[in-house]
Amino acid sequence: MAASYESLFGGILAEVEGEMRAARQEQREVAPLMWQMIDHHFGWNAEDAAQRARIAGKRVRPVLMALVAQAIAGSYRHVLPAAAALEFLHNFTLIHDDVMDRSLERRHRPTVWSIWGSDQAINAGDGLYALANLTLTRLLRLDVPPARIVRAAAVLSQACLWTAEGQVLDMTFPQREDVTVAEYLTMITHKTATLIEAAAQMGALLSTDDEAVVQAYGQFARALGIAFQVRDDYLGIWGDEAITGKSATGDIREKKKSYPVLFAWERAGDSDRETLRRIYAQPTLSDQDVQQVVRILERTGAPAETERVADDYYQAALRHLDATGSANAAQTQLRQLASFLVRRAY
Amino acid sequence: MAASYESLFGGILAEVEGEMRAARQEQREVAPLMWQMIDHHFGWNAEDAAQRARIAGKRVRPVLMALVAQAIAGSYRHVLPAAAALEFLHNFTLIHDDVMDRSLERRHRPTVWSIWGSDQAINAGDGLYALANLTLTRLLRLDVPPARIVRAAAVLSQACLWTAEGQVLDMTFPQREDVTVAEYLTMITHKTATLIEAAAQMGALLSTDDEAVVQAYGQFARALGIAFQVRDDYLGIWGDEAITGKSATGDIREKKKSYPVLFAWERAGDSDRETLRRIYAQPTLSDQDVQQVVRILERTGAPAETERVADDYYQAALRHLDATGSANAAQTQLRQLASFLVRRAY
Repeated sequence: MAASYESLFGGILAEVEGEMRAARQEQREVAPLMWQMIDHHFGWNAEDAAQRARIAGKRVRPVLMALVAQAIAGSYRHVLPAAAALEFLHNFTLIHDDVMDRSLERRHRPTVWSIWGSDQAINAGDGLYALANLTLTRLLRLDVPPARIVRAAAVLSQACLWTAEGQVLDMTFPQREDVTVAEYLTMITHKTATLIEAAAQMGALLSTDDEAVVQAYGQFARALGIAFQVRDDYLGIWGDEAITGKSATGDIREKKKSYPVLFAWERAGDSDRETLRRIYAQPTLSDQDVQQVVRILERTGAPAETERVADDYYQAALRHLDATGSANAAQTQLRQLASFLVRRAY
Repeated sequence: MAASYESLFGGILAEVEGEMRAARQEQREVAPLMWQMIDHHFGWNAEDAAQRARIAGKRVRPVLMALVAQAIAGSYRHVLPAAAALEFLHNFTLIHDDVMDRSLERRHRPTVWSIWGSDQAINAGDGLYALANLTLTRLLRLDVPPARIVRAAAVLSQACLWTAEGQVLDMTFPQREDVTVAEYLTMITHKTATLIEAAAQMGALLSTDDEAVVQAYGQFARALGIAFQVRDDYLGIWGDEAITGKSATGDIREKKKSYPVLFAWERAGDSDRETLRRIYAQPTLSDQDVQQVVRILERTGAPAETERVADDYYQAALRHLDATGSANAAQTQLRQLASFLVRRAY
């Protein structure tokens, strides 16, 4: 499946990578350690190309932005600095998230904080966000109208603010017993979907002044982002370990309040809800606890409901995509990207 | 002295405060806790005005930016969003610095992390940086030419990156025995002076296209920022406790590698250097250690040298200010601000 993504979007991936590296190379190094941390995070210090590609990941947001620009304007060269900026921004949030989650590994390598400590990892994230903003201003050199660049900056910054607010909300959930499905959707809309929405909006507004088109692409991507996250929640419990590479039921063991869990919590009968309350009040869950939670989730119909919700958002996304009025090869690739993100089994 | 600053710059302070609040009020609250943290940091939840003013502090960067705009263009209204953005950015670095330094208090109130924990304080800082960038785009509504806004964004982002790099360097100093005076100057130039330089540059480039004028104001402010920090280092050891409000010799007790300490380390004779090495190798310093360090510093002539260096940068700053070619009331106020920052005894 990685080969298929690569064959579809490899050209874009290579150009985004080139722009990211050019923006990074342009900086003279005041504190070499800052650049060591950033180079490590992106795998730019890795020796072989295959390893670097694995570390780079799918780069969904830059690919989405490029395809939207291509669908509207027939080319994506004029959005490359914005695509690189958004990828830098996304990665700054990952570096900080890893500090907050105490995650030891990302993409099979040690996280920045696990090597250099939390304090320096905070600095690395801050510096990378600054680099993201600086990279956006490279659009000036491509003769993009400055008014569009300022608008792109506003979308990028608003998305970053909302992502941070989504993260604030997410971190309050574990201590709460009364999180609703509606609150959960608000949280993922901001924490996860906003940057995906921003990718499409920026690709559009840098390519056209037609506000209706910009909005339609934005709505497409927001719904897609929500569908992606809900599908991810499904796979976090019922995914095939051999395909996802993650431990099945790992999300339950970590007491993540994901969509299926919150749905079950709302729908369970009194006795099941009491069992959930008792299990989630414990500091850690045994294998038996995990199995019992899964049984309760399945009794409430959470798996089917979770798949239904993901599919509803996916179908809504496709309707918004049709509403953009574009019909060309890039538009077809956008459908393929959407399918790749939501229909995946991994 | 606070009254004097207030009487000179009170008008600017009020308008910057108004712009900051307007930018903040415009945000709908996705995560109320985010805004609780930000409002706490700025004292916007404080009841009486006197307390709020004390929490707000001197807001040197916005005042500097406004005065430069006034000196060039006869008004500062057109830079208010940029001034608010820079103040937001400066405060995001303070929120993260407090996490890294484990500081319990700032401006006589508990720091954000000490109330809500380090993880949420990281989010508060990230969100505030995003708000800073978003606030900058409010310049569009004041009909500032978009090309100037993009350039202001580039200066702001470069300054933020360098500030983060300065912080990275600063945090490596305690573990090193071989920090030179030259490295120290590089560190403070980035960690402290860059945002002050950015204030002046942004005020200028939003007011004129004359590149020589923009550069001269930038050089003025960078030299001023360095002078300010070196003077601060002097006061951190030889300041009058009753005036500075900080414990004299506190910097030595905390083993800060400030200018006088590094100068003495370079100039001390073999025996004094060995004593310094022994004292700084300890986890904590006794009163006797502190007194001995002060004696060595004074033996090497560090107090006079530190004052001389601060004054050299101060004089250089004034020469750059004269080179801007402006001569009006705002220019006089810039000299007063410079004197206030470097000639202070507190």
